[in-house]
Amino acid sequence: MDIHFRLATEGDLDSIVYMLADDVLGSKREKYEQPLPESYINAFHSIKSDPNNELIVACKEETVVGVQQLTFTPYLTHQGGWRATVEGVRTAASVRGQGVGSELIIWAINRAKQRGCHVIQLTTDKERSDALRFYERLGFEATHEGLKLKL
Amino acid sequence: MDIHFRLATEGDLDSIVYMLADDVLGSKREKYEQPLPESYINAFHSIKSDPNNELIVACKEETVVGVQQLTFTPYLTHQGGWRATVEGVRTAASVRGQGVGSELIIWAINRAKQRGCHVIQLTTDKERSDALRFYERLGFEATHEGLKLKL
Repeated sequence: MDIHFRLATEGDLDSIVYMLADDVLGSKREKYEQPLPESYINAFHSIKSDPNNELIVACKEETVVGVQQLTFTPYLTHQGGWRATVEGVRTAASVRGQGVGSELIIWAINRAKQRGCHVIQLTTDKERSDALRFYERLGFEATHEGLKLKL
Repeated sequence: MDIHFRLATEGDLDSIVYMLADDVLGSKREKYEQPLPESYINAFHSIKSDPNNELIVACKEETVVGVQQLTFTPYLTHQGGWRATVEGVRTAASVRGQGVGSELIIWAINRAKQRGCHVIQLTTDKERSDALRFYERLGFEATHEGLKLKL
């Protein structure tokens, strides 16, 4: 399948939020409605104005079929190394099982190298049992526990 | 113990890198020497110039006895919610077991609330068996797998 990748624009937000909500966990916590809740639009502008955040869409011809957010962070640890973090990886139901998810992550790995990161990292909810195997096939290792505290 | 918290300055870097290197995992990957490797100084300036990153030190009188880095990230997920990520939490050997680590994390939780985050998160290496219990006592839940890929 011929997929290309680019930075998301505000015009993509509707397709992106639809994908976020059309997900086993996202359906419980997202709100896809017209017009889109303003909180999504505000978050989009915060991401877009931050040079260390990139919201990336995967497109099949003109249709948005995947999304992910990359964050680049400078740390003192590892002798002052930068890291890339991947979050919110989703693909459209219409293309599931066709490798778009893998293409997104491979794109993220290459982008992280371009940005000079020494590691690329992500966390995945333990409820997503297939996701762990998916990332392990792509070379990730589940060396860490991912802890959250709701505020 | 009377501990106070503040943003790290360049003058704190020596104490901070010493703590990062004086650690079971850090001893294998950090480089504490005089003068400090430039990569630490460059990372410090990248952190300092980014409004979404804060390097925090815990001080006992004038002595740096703890460090942590907080990153605030806008995401589309969770209806466009901001998250706080904690990384590189270390305390000086001289104060270990005296609650400085807990005070650091409680400070981070309050700072994340101030910044309007809906969640505070971190990952901890599965080799640090005590760390998981430490964070769980502070209210964190190990709901996620933390995956890394070295580049």
